[in-house]
Amino acid sequence: MDFTTELPLLLGFTGGLLALLYAVWKSRWIMALEVPDEKLKRIGGYVAKGAMAFLVREYKVLLPFAVAASVLLYFGSHSFLRWEAATFLIGAGCSGLAGFFGMKVATQSNFRTTWAARTSLNQALKVSFAGGSVMGMTVMGLALIGISAILFATMSSFGREVADMKAWSLPILSGFALGASCIALFARVGGGIYTKAADVGADLVGKVEAGIPEDDPRNPATIADNVGDNVGDVAGMGADLYESFVATVLGCMILGLAVEAPADLKIKLCLLPLALGASGVIASILGMMLVRVGKNGSPQAALNLGTFAAAGFAAIFSWPIFHYTLGGQTFSGGANANNLFWSTVIGVVGGTAIGLLTEYFTGTGGRPVNAIVKASETGPATNLITGMGIGMMSTALPILVMALTVFLGYWQAGLFGVAIATLGMQLFLGIQLAVDAFGPIADNAGGLAEMSEQPSSVRANTDKLDAVGNTTAAIGKGFATASAALTSVVLFSAFKEETGVGSIEITDPMVLIGLLAGGMVPYLFSSMCMMAVGRAAFAMVEEVRRQFRTIAGILEGTTEPDYGRCVDISTRAALREMILPGILAILSPVLVGFLGGVPMLTGFLVGVTVSGVSLAIFMSNTGGAWDNAKKTIEAGASGGKGSDAHKAAVVGDTVGDPFKDTAGPSLNILIKLMGVMSVVIAPMLRRFWGY
Amino acid sequence: MDFTTELPLLLGFTGGLLALLYAVWKSRWIMALEVPDEKLKRIGGYVAKGAMAFLVREYKVLLPFAVAASVLLYFGSHSFLRWEAATFLIGAGCSGLAGFFGMKVATQSNFRTTWAARTSLNQALKVSFAGGSVMGMTVMGLALIGISAILFATMSSFGREVADMKAWSLPILSGFALGASCIALFARVGGGIYTKAADVGADLVGKVEAGIPEDDPRNPATIADNVGDNVGDVAGMGADLYESFVATVLGCMILGLAVEAPADLKIKLCLLPLALGASGVIASILGMMLVRVGKNGSPQAALNLGTFAAAGFAAIFSWPIFHYTLGGQTFSGGANANNLFWSTVIGVVGGTAIGLLTEYFTGTGGRPVNAIVKASETGPATNLITGMGIGMMSTALPILVMALTVFLGYWQAGLFGVAIATLGMQLFLGIQLAVDAFGPIADNAGGLAEMSEQPSSVRANTDKLDAVGNTTAAIGKGFATASAALTSVVLFSAFKEETGVGSIEITDPMVLIGLLAGGMVPYLFSSMCMMAVGRAAFAMVEEVRRQFRTIAGILEGTTEPDYGRCVDISTRAALREMILPGILAILSPVLVGFLGGVPMLTGFLVGVTVSGVSLAIFMSNTGGAWDNAKKTIEAGASGGKGSDAHKAAVVGDTVGDPFKDTAGPSLNILIKLMGVMSVVIAPMLRRFWGY
Repeated sequence: MDFTTELPLLLGFTGGLLALLYAVWKSRWIMALEVPDEKLKRIGGYVAKGAMAFLVREYKVLLPFAVAASVLLYFGSHSFLRWEAATFLIGAGCSGLAGFFGMKVATQSNFRTTWAARTSLNQALKVSFAGGSVMGMTVMGLALIGISAILFATMSSFGREVADMKAWSLPILSGFALGASCIALFARVGGGIYTKAADVGADLVGKVEAGIPEDDPRNPATIADNVGDNVGDVAGMGADLYESFVATVLGCMILGLAVEAPADLKIKLCLLPLALGASGVIASILGMMLVRVGKNGSPQAALNLGTFAAAGFAAIFSWPIFHYTLGGQTFSGGANANNLFWSTVIGVVGGTAIGLLTEYFTGTGGRPVNAIVKASETGPATNLITGMGIGMMSTALPILVMALTVFLGYWQAGLFGVAIATLGMQLFLGIQLAVDAFGPIADNAGGLAEMSEQPSSVRANTDKLDAVGNTTAAIGKGFATASAALTSVVLFSAFKEETGVGSIEITDPMVLIGLLAGGMVPYLFSSMCMMAVGRAAFAMVEEVRRQFRTIAGILEGTTEPDYGRCVDISTRAALREMILPGILAILSPVLVGFLGGVPMLTGFLVGVTVSGVSLAIFMSNTGGAWDNAKKTIEAGASGGKGSDAHKAAVVGDTVGDPFKDTAGPSLNILIKLMGVMSVVIAPMLRRFWGY
Repeated sequence: MDFTTELPLLLGFTGGLLALLYAVWKSRWIMALEVPDEKLKRIGGYVAKGAMAFLVREYKVLLPFAVAASVLLYFGSHSFLRWEAATFLIGAGCSGLAGFFGMKVATQSNFRTTWAARTSLNQALKVSFAGGSVMGMTVMGLALIGISAILFATMSSFGREVADMKAWSLPILSGFALGASCIALFARVGGGIYTKAADVGADLVGKVEAGIPEDDPRNPATIADNVGDNVGDVAGMGADLYESFVATVLGCMILGLAVEAPADLKIKLCLLPLALGASGVIASILGMMLVRVGKNGSPQAALNLGTFAAAGFAAIFSWPIFHYTLGGQTFSGGANANNLFWSTVIGVVGGTAIGLLTEYFTGTGGRPVNAIVKASETGPATNLITGMGIGMMSTALPILVMALTVFLGYWQAGLFGVAIATLGMQLFLGIQLAVDAFGPIADNAGGLAEMSEQPSSVRANTDKLDAVGNTTAAIGKGFATASAALTSVVLFSAFKEETGVGSIEITDPMVLIGLLAGGMVPYLFSSMCMMAVGRAAFAMVEEVRRQFRTIAGILEGTTEPDYGRCVDISTRAALREMILPGILAILSPVLVGFLGGVPMLTGFLVGVTVSGVSLAIFMSNTGGAWDNAKKTIEAGASGGKGSDAHKAAVVGDTVGDPFKDTAGPSLNILIKLMGVMSVVIAPMLRRFWGY
């Protein structure tokens, strides 16, 4: 076995397999849990059916698109690069598979969590976290297996020299990343529209007009609302982090080949991310094993312990890997194994810091959220002004941390150091995603408890988990944005490397045109998402009103409302409305690249990132802070539920819904997708423009 | 007389003088108008007194700052560049003078407009537009005189060769631009906070809580509200466009010297903007003469005719100027006089297109505003989501037009062509500003009509003018943003030219760090503005409530409220709150430049612009559209005044106030100020980093 090439590929593949095995094991454990409550099972079945039906229909819409894109890739590429058409489909398929499997388990975990919450908080945490773990490990596993299998195939077929890798293997791998990105974008946008249309619709008519509580079974949109949590927060988030991980690995590989070093070291650095990924699987599993809560323990502390431990393990494991791979070799003017280790640490610490900052700005009990609570007392206008003011302010420190991470990574080991720091931030992806996906499962469990009329102690337990889920979701969003921004930075350089263009001068008017136009795209894209939610919510409002009006006995609780139609409205709206923003994201870099050239496209990519990162943080954090301000008031502050302050806070929360769950997170994918797309079309641009 | 140097200087000086003479003539005409209504005069006097008192206190706060900055410039610079300390003070002084003079006349025009509205709509338009013209021509005049006088002095003292100009004259002139920029920033931010604190405070308590109409004399904050219109929209806008014009001329001059051409042509191109500016004065005056409305004519049509005619004249006049100056000479690979003429036309057309797009997205009766009106029917949340969705969408086309303007200008005559296109957009500044400043005068006239209890026909006439003013303000904002963005583009290149740094690679991590950090600054800055408005409005709300509670007879109309205290609260809040955002804007480029170097600072400037332009358009247009949606409902749509839709629209309008009148327009200055500041410190950075 050739240690420079086969070993990392094998490690990556084995790590991926391990992750999948863990996922299978956990999901079998979940499926084996018996739930004797028939009503709970039936309502849980509605949610599961609605969620899976959405996914199937979504994939049916995306299939012709994926095939068409793959055909275009085939005819647009030359020679062996035509294999990109196949890897694109594999990437898209793996992303779809991860979404399908993760959501399947999530929708089986939610009602089991409700049942477990009868026993204890710890048991409920265990079930819901297990559900999240399946998603996390599936994503990591499919990513590692996909990348190592494709590299094994291409390297065996087209050669293992640096030039071969540059010419064939990595471009073909970029097709895989592009497939993952495209599905991720549609999953995020479609899921985001679905969940918020249902949520806003359910709230506006059910809570505000009919005055029935949240998750009440009499509300026709309530099943759609719970389906939405799965579709948006589980499947959408999973696809998002899947593509982030794949894109980062791809960027690392391209930059690994681009360092100044002997050929053998270049190959080693290029394949290094696979070994790191495998170690990340183990770190994640170890972290997961630490997540347990004692009798009076806090679930938040348990999740934090697991995550931080996994982060620590990931950093520690990277040390021997770097030393074994590099030995005493150095690259790019003296960077060595220790420098790479410190880059990893920088990434881990930077990501954590951004997560904690996000928690500070959006978390219940903090000064920012309390300021919004206070502002709610003078009405919705001041709630909104203060909320957006705080959201805007919250962009500053995370972006400075990102900038510092780039600076320190670069200082340690040049561009490759930045890439490794970015990867470091995502090495413990398995547990990060588990913690993220646990939130909507707990949220769903609460909804199901309400709908199936469980004792109030059940709801109390799920509420505790849900509150924790909101905080962890905020932290997860911080990580997602940070890794999107840094992945982009890595992709810019990878793209430039692939096009073979010389220097790109920032004050060149063509570059500035690209920058200006790129800076506008996140706004246009967000606008499409927001307007889509508005339209879909409007349709939902009409439907709920219609049911209350025409179906007798709903409000008395004697007739079950027609949940299916609401699910159908959300589904169709999401599928229809995700097309336009998706096309904007996918086609605009292609157009700019072929009409304006590589410098303009580079400016465009940078413009999208620079403007998009701030906008994404602003939207996500504003929405999160509004949500928690409302929750704080509902917990009794400023007059509590039903007060004028509460009404004002509900307005803020409703405006925040498309901010934080549709537009904000979709921007992260937009940023990365455009980078990946540019890397994919780089060889075509090189031929077209003749660099 | 040496035609290459003295003639343009003389033309610039004469043009400036002509503008000032026109302003003096118009203001004497206004002052000569008699108003026999004592109550109207008395209340008009309150507003005038409050406005002038604010300006005096503002300048008192800014004086020590200006002196300190000037001292720093003196000690930071070397050799003759120490003169920058003096030109900085002159620039700041001229900006202050323009604000003072313009506002003095505006506060004398407003109550005369009210009186004129008794006679006819045309007479009211004549008076209010004359008031605006004084502001417009003062600004143009002081800019042209200041620039030509400084250049005359420096060129006489330090030499007239290209090298002398590069080394001394233009850097010293940049001190003048910096002075103007700094005052503009404080005027915009301070004025914006003042006007919105008063407005929001007056609305929240007066309209919503006490249920008295807008501009009712029983509302203690109403005088402050009317003062605010002058402080924010007249003085703030004037200072804004003053600095925009000066910065653009400076950028043109630096790029004029940087073209590839024989030395004599370089000097000619450098001084060309002064001759163009003089022709712009004449174009503006001719346009103003066309603004008159017949018996059944529309004021909007009259203002549009004047503006478009002035734009046309400015373009036409530029043709002989270019041909006379260049003769048959060409520069930078073949660009000639015709190319420069087309660059001017491109700028004029681009600016107009952006203005019209702004009108479409924010104007009453258009599809976007009607969509917001419809969304208001389902409550404040949908009003807000739709409004922001539309505001985000409205960024796309204007930015594409900007990008196209840069592209076409560059295609015609390289970077200098871009600079000339930018200048072309501002050549008819005199009438643009007149049209902008006319709006708040008409608005004030309406307020004064209400407070002094004029017959309803008076209010009807002023309302018509006010509605026109809102549209023209929207167009003016479009122009202001476009010229800010393009001025920045010009300043990037000018900055790079001045530092002597080589190529700045966009994918260099230091540049990317600057870009990311820069992209966040507009959010941080806007956040500071929004939170400041929130705090100041809160203080105003408390004071108005206190007066209603403790002063007997206010609500019955038997006792006059204590207007002075409300004016004082707005004044103090504005002066206190403008400091922090001001310091952020002024110091951050200095810090980045000295700590991170020129590439990082360049990235930072570009990042601020790329992110700031989109954010500024988003905020301005969202606010404008919300305002007009509310007005549409008040005119009877969706249930009219008092309906639930109206209440929802009022929330949107209130949120939009700090968007469109504080943060949005201040961002334009932020962008330009940072560019000018960088040009000023460029020689210091060059020495510090040793390029």
